[in-house]
Order: sequence, then structure tokens, then C-alpha cells
Amino acid sequence: MILAKIKRTVEESDTRAGRIFDLFIQFLIVLSLVSFSVETLPDLSDSSRDILYIIEAITVAIFTAEYFSRLIVAEKKLKFIFSFYGIIDLAAILPFYIASGVDLRAVRIFRLFRLIRVLKMFRYSKALQKFRVAFSSIRDELVLFLVATVFLLFIAAVGIYYFEKNVQPDEFGSVFHSLWWAVATLTTVGYGDVFPITVGGKIFTFVILLIGLGVIAVPAGLMASALTQAVDDEDEKADDSDDTGSGG
Amino acid sequence: MILAKIKRTVEESDTRAGRIFDLFIQFLIVLSLVSFSVETLPDLSDSSRDILYIIEAITVAIFTAEYFSRLIVAEKKLKFIFSFYGIIDLAAILPFYIASGVDLRAVRIFRLFRLIRVLKMFRYSKALQKFRVAFSSIRDELVLFLVATVFLLFIAAVGIYYFEKNVQPDEFGSVFHSLWWAVATLTTVGYGDVFPITVGGKIFTFVILLIGLGVIAVPAGLMASALTQAVDDEDEKADDSDDTGSGG
Amino acid sequence: MILAKIKRTVEESDTRAGRIFDLFIQFLIVLSLVSFSVETLPDLSDSSRDILYIIEAITVAIFTAEYFSRLIVAEKKLKFIFSFYGIIDLAAILPFYIASGVDLRAVRIFRLFRLIRVLKMFRYSKALQKFRVAFSSIRDELVLFLVATVFLLFIAAVGIYYFEKNVQPDEFGSVFHSLWWAVATLTTVGYGDVFPITVGGKIFTFVILLIGLGVIAVPAGLMASALTQAVDDEDEKADDSDDTGSGG
Amino acid sequence: MILAKIKRTVEESDTRAGRIFDLFIQFLIVLSLVSFSVETLPDLSDSSRDILYIIEAITVAIFTAEYFSRLIVAEKKLKFIFSFYGIIDLAAILPFYIASGVDLRAVRIFRLFRLIRVLKMFRYSKALQKFRVAFSSIRDELVLFLVATVFLLFIAAVGIYYFEKNVQPDEFGSVFHSLWWAVATLTTVGYGDVFPITVGGKIFTFVILLIGLGVIAVPAGLMASALTQAVDDEDEKADDSDDTGSGG
Repeated sequence: MILAKIKRTVEESDTRAGRIFDLFIQFLIVLSLVSFSVETLPDLSDSSRDILYIIEAITVAIFTAEYFSRLIVAEKKLKFIFSFYGIIDLAAILPFYIASGVDLRAVRIFRLFRLIRVLKMFRYSKALQKFRVAFSSIRDELVLFLVATVFLLFIAAVGIYYFEKNVQPDEFGSVFHSLWWAVATLTTVGYGDVFPITVGGKIFTFVILLIGLGVIAVPAGLMASALTQAVDDEDEKADDSDDTGSGG
Repeated sequence: MILAKIKRTVEESDTRAGRIFDLFIQFLIVLSLVSFSVETLPDLSDSSRDILYIIEAITVAIFTAEYFSRLIVAEKKLKFIFSFYGIIDLAAILPFYIASGVDLRAVRIFRLFRLIRVLKMFRYSKALQKFRVAFSSIRDELVLFLVATVFLLFIAAVGIYYFEKNVQPDEFGSVFHSLWWAVATLTTVGYGDVFPITVGGKIFTFVILLIGLGVIAVPAGLMASALTQAVDDEDEKADDSDDTGSGG
Repeated sequence: MILAKIKRTVEESDTRAGRIFDLFIQFLIVLSLVSFSVETLPDLSDSSRDILYIIEAITVAIFTAEYFSRLIVAEKKLKFIFSFYGIIDLAAILPFYIASGVDLRAVRIFRLFRLIRVLKMFRYSKALQKFRVAFSSIRDELVLFLVATVFLLFIAAVGIYYFEKNVQPDEFGSVFHSLWWAVATLTTVGYGDVFPITVGGKIFTFVILLIGLGVIAVPAGLMASALTQAVDDEDEKADDSDDTGSGG
Repeated sequence: MILAKIKRTVEESDTRAGRIFDLFIQFLIVLSLVSFSVETLPDLSDSSRDILYIIEAITVAIFTAEYFSRLIVAEKKLKFIFSFYGIIDLAAILPFYIASGVDLRAVRIFRLFRLIRVLKMFRYSKALQKFRVAFSSIRDELVLFLVATVFLLFIAAVGIYYFEKNVQPDEFGSVFHSLWWAVATLTTVGYGDVFPITVGGKIFTFVILLIGLGVIAVPAGLMASALTQAVDDEDEKADDSDDTGSGG
């Protein structure tokens, strides 16, 4: 009886309890990420660190309870353990327990594992699910354009290297150094840490920008339109399920 | 009789008097905003300040007259007072009267209240009305993509933090410091105050730019296309009303 | 007889003589603009200046001949003189004759008049004609969006002014100073001469960028799509006239 | 018998041997380009240079074998020699043999010839073939918009030159100097090495950006959409050939 209720709570999101549970876990993930960010602040007082540790401990405790609840109500235990979200749920709590033996604060790399919780967010956040849908729907085109982009960046880097290496041997010391310029320029970020100063280099920059501006923006454009598509599809599904879902 | 004329003047915009009234109020709002801007200039002479004060006083006087005219001709007084524009009209003049007791120039924050007049502009300017229409038509998508954008910026900030914190502890002192870099980079503004200098950080920048450039541009793109849509809709309406409106 | 030939040469562009004439005048305009640019180079030798003067004199002589040819063959002389291109043709040569009395090189502003020749180019260059067509087809929308853009820049400037004025009184000294930041940021140019350094200013930059990036790009986007439209229309016309034009 | 096998290997890409051969040559080209880039690194040890030379020698040897294989199996030998890829294949190996007489490392310009191998890549890489298809499909429009872009950059450069030359004689010393500012600004790269400091120059920048932002992005946009079109066309072809190709 109680098991069925837990099952409905953790696995379904169209019951009241399920919705509250989902929102609560999402809140915990965001809290966990915020406290992760706060922990990176320099000159943090000891009392602040203690509070952050307590938040971390409580979060892990609840995530552990969530993990075992899901395990208990899962019909096929092993399948859950080795499923995508099963592994992530475990990976989101395990580092804490391992690090509890040694001093957590010393082992900096363990902090990074907490970011795995971002992936937990994918189960709950529709916005992030769209990322995954969008990404997988354009994987093939993305690979093609990444090849084209890398090729263009290489040409840009080689070109500017030959124009600028003699005048700016530090900034354009090799093709690899020049690649950084190519990235910053063709994405139009233009930090201003490296830029051509020879006339030839400036003309080359103009030409490569005219051709390349559009190309390097294609992967980003594909991602954006796939994301928009994913949202539209979701909206349609939402419209359909609203009719039946309103009864729950 | 005269009341009906005032009513037509302040509430309708397809009579000649109404059009002139609308343009006059718009001119006053723009004048008010310009004088607000001029007032922020450093080293302003006392005589200039006096002129600005007189402009302000006259503007407020006319806006007060406008407010009471609208109140008088309104059929449901209370409804007007608590309507969106009713509150804005009052908020645009009230600070001046309150501040007149004390010395206006000392209470700097009161000057900011004058910006509420920008909102008055929404009643008159079709261009700004389109902003409101556009904004409300894409609110849901905007929220979704803002979540996605914030998520992406967080990932970018955490990534660059780990690559750069040891080499540039001032610029990338914490995840929050790094967020500023993420904003400036993924919007391609690239001020050049913070940028990666490690090889790892530069490669990470390249990867996150390829994926993120498009995503962070989606809210802006949505706004732009909704705005264009709002203009097209308005144009169609304008075409329809031209047939009947030409008789006025 | 000879008049009819001149008429065909200067007024028609589908005869062989007409095409050569058109190309020759275009070449002269480009030469004139290039020599205008060369003249702005500092430390120009006297002999270079002499060559540039000779080029200028020859160009003006030919343009004068062109002007009188057009005047002679025009059926309605007065109509030609006061037509758009008639005025431009005269304005392109008159400053030279006026300046010949005084020393041309001393009167710097007269040099700027030579740029009027760019407008002559509009008669010959299809690419530039498209600019004019594109521009006039979207004038109404452009005005609307310019209002919206100016409004957005104003909001951005006022906001950043309040966040940054105390910390950077030189860069953000008034709303007008801040407008420059707003332009450089919302167009994503981001020179890096002014940028927020307070936390509030940085967060405000993020918010205004998310909303404003797209809006400020709309006029540019409208121009781009109108230009593309103008090209497509031209292509269709070109396709149609190819059938009949091939006989000429 | 063996000739027919070689023919199938080098000329066809739907047999197993052909596919492996294609991948192997592509790998060699990438290796060759990477080693070219590594060679530009400063302070390279002698042993590293030796390894790079060996890689180069082996690559050239294999490319030579490839060239002669293609020559032998070609039905019309002369046609192959003077075909696009025939010339590129030869140009990719010849410099090595010519430079072997003299000291290769001294003749820096010969290194650049190795970049011709990038063009070899076009035969194998579908992503790069799309570049060529896309480029040739929009050549006419591209020329038109390049004229428009150059015209706009010229106007921008002349304008900013007149506003800034007196205040910043080094950065805006002539129209040619100012062109660099125009390129960096209208592409929104904005390195920050040159920017207007006069009020007039800043207002001019705002106006030219509003109009020009979109125009200068058109060639890039055309390239991007032509590239996307080329990918879609390829996909359709791929879908069609999948039915028959699955039997190979």
C-alpha cells in the first residue's frame, strides 16, 4: 500500500504528490549547485563552510533516500541500477560517502563530481530535456559542420600565422597560437588580446571574416533551430496530453 | 459639452484634436526623458539646473492636468485610478509633489521615479506597444530558454573556473566571477577585460562557443521575430481600419 | 546622326558602346574614390600629390563632358538639370571648378564633396541600386524599430549609469556617456573601452543583453532580408529580359 | 587482375578496400597538416624535427604511390594528369622532391605548398565538398553583396576618418587606416585596438552599425544557408542511394 504510494510519488509527475516531489528534488539540485558555486568563493569564513557542509550533507541524505526509494519501487532492480538515470543518481551521492572517510575539503576534485547532479536535472527540467532532444536530432549535421568549422579555423590560423609571425612572434608564435585568434575572431567575440597589426594580416582578416562568419555560426544556428523545434514538438504533445492529464 | 470634447481629445486618437494631444504628450515625455538625461551631466551650471527644474515643473503640471482630465471623463473613476495606465499616470507625477517639500536635488532616488514616464509612452507609441505585445506572446518560450541559457552559462562558468582559477585568481576567483566571463563571451560582446590564457581554457572556450553561441541567441531571436510578427499584425489591422478610418 | 549615337551611348546600356561607356564611368568613379582615399594618407610626397591632382583634373574633365553630353541629348533639358542624377552629376564636378580659384588643397571640406561621386555610382552599379530599393521598401518598419532601438538603448544607458557612475565616474559620467556603452554592448561589438565592474552592473548587462540583443539586430536583419529580396526580384526581371535582351 | 583490384580500391569508395583506402589517405592528410602545424612551433628540438621529417617523407612516399596508382589505372592518362585532382595530387608531392636537393628547412615557402594537401581532402571529405557546392551555387549573389559590403565599409571608413583623424591621428591616419576600424566594427568583432573617442564619431558609429550590421552579415548568411542547402541535397541523394548501396 505504502509502496504503491511511494511508487506513484517518485515515478509519476501528474499526481499532486509526484509534482511536489519533483519540484522539491529540483530545488535541492539548484540549491546544491548554488552551494557548490558559493564554495568556490575565496576568503570564505569557517562558519560559512560549516553551513555549506550541512546543506551538502542534508542534500546527499535526501538524494540517498530518493535513490533507495526508486530502487525499492523499481520492478527490475538491476535494470534501474544500470540505467542512465540510475547510474547518475548513484554518482551524485557516492563521492560524498567516499570522501567522508578522508577530509572532503582537501580533495578538490571530488567537488567536481557534485556537478553530476546537473544531469539529474535532465530528468525533471523540460528545458534541459529539450537540449538533449535537440542535440540528438542534429548530431549528423553537427559533425559535418564541425569538420567544416575546424577546417576553416585551420585555414584562418595558417594564413594569419604567415602574415603576423614576424611582427608578433609571441601572439602568433605557431599555427596553434594562431588558432586562438581564429576562434576569437570568427565567433566575433574579439577579446582584443590578439589581433593583426600588419596590412596583409588585416586584409586577410577581412576576407576570412566575410566567408567564415556565416560558416562558424551554422552549428550554433542548427542547435538554436533544433531547440526551437524541440519546444514546438513538446508544446504539441503538451496540448494533446492536457485533455487527458486534466483528469489526474 | 466641453466634457465630451475633452473626452474625445484625451481618449480618442482618430480625431484631429486627439492626434495633436497625443503627439503633444509624447513630445513632453521625450522632453522629460532628455532633461532627465541632461541632469545627469556632471559640472552642470546652476542656471542650467534652474532651466531643467522649470521644464520639469511645467511637464508635471501638464501631466497633472492630463491625469485629472482622464479622471473626470472616465465613466468608472475607481477603475481608471487602479488601471495599469491610471497607476502609471499618477506615479509619473506624485514623486515631484512629494519631493517638493524636501529639496528635490538631494533626493537622488526620486529622479529615477521620473523614468516611470517611459511607461506612459507605451500608451502612445505604437513601436513600444509592439514590445509589449511581442513580449507577452512569447513569455512561455522565453522562460524555457532563459532556464536553458542560465544552465549553459553555469556550465561555461564552472568549466572556465577550473581551467583558469590557478593562473588568473583575480579574474576567475570563483564561479560567480567566471559567470561574467561566460556572459561576455557567449553573447560575443567580448569586452576583453577577462579571457582565458591557459591552453585548456582556450580549447574549452572554443567548444562552449560552438554549442552555446546559438542557444544564448535564441531568446533574443524569439524577441526579434515576435516583434516582427507584432508589426505585421499591426500592419494588417492598419490596412483594415484605413478603409473606415479615412472618413474621420 | 552623331547626336543619336551619343544618346544611345550615354543613355542606353544594352548596346556595346553603352556598356563600354558605363564600365568606363564606373572605373573613373572607383579611381576617383581610391585617389580620394590615397590623398588622406599622411606624409604624401609632393610628386604623389601632383599625380593625384592630375588624375582628379582628368576625371573632372571627363565627368564634365559626360554631364554636357547628357544635357545635350536630353529631350527636356530643365527636367534633366533638376533630376536626382542631374543634380548629383553637377555636384560631382562643380566643387572642383569653384575650388580652382582658391587653393584646392587648403580647403579640406571641398574634398568631401568629391564623395558625392559615390552617388553617381548608384546609376551604374546594380548592387548599389539594390541598396536603394531595399531601403525604400522597409522605410516604415525601419522607423518603428529605430524608435524601439533608441528606447532600448536609453533604458540600458540609464540602468548602467545608476550602477556604475559612483565607481567609474569618468566612463559612466552621465546618461549620454553611458549611451556609448549601450551601443557598443548591444551591437556586441564590445570594444572594451567601457564595461561594468560592479556586480549590479554586470547582472544588469546580462539581463539587458538577453532582451536587447535581438531587438537591436532587427533593423539590420530587415535591411539584410530586404536586400536579399531586392536581389531575387532583380534576378527574376533579368531572367525575363534575357529572352528579349539577347537579340540586342 | 591486380590492376582491376587497384582500380577498384583507388577509384571506388563503396567497396570495403576502397573505403579503407579513402580513410587511410584522409588520415595521412590530417597527419600531414598536423605535422605542418607542429613544425611552426618555436623552440622545437632537433629530434622532434627529425621525426616530423620522417613523417613527411613517409607521407610523400605514400602520396606518390597513390598518384602513380591513379595514373596507371586511369583510362585516359593525359586527362587525369591535367584534371583538377590530378594537378593537386602532383602539387602535393612535387615540392618535397624539388626541395630535397636543397635544404628543405631553409626554404620556408616550400612548407606552404604542403597546404595544397588540404585540397586533396576535398576529394574525400563530404563536409568540404559541400563547401565547394555551396560556394559555386551562390557565386553571383556573393559578388553583388561583396560590392555592397566594400561600398559600405568605404563609407564607414571615410565617415569615421573625418570625425576622428584630428583626435587620433595614429589610429585614423587615413581612409585606409580607418578601413580596419570599419571591418572590425561592422563584423562586431571589436578587438578594441581602435575605437572612436569623439562624440561625433560615436554617434556615426551607432548610425552605421544600425544600417550596416545586417548588410555585412549577408554574404556570411548566404554562405551558411547555401551550405545547409548543400547538406540537405546530399542527404536526399544519400537516402536514395542507400536502397541500392546496401547491396554492395
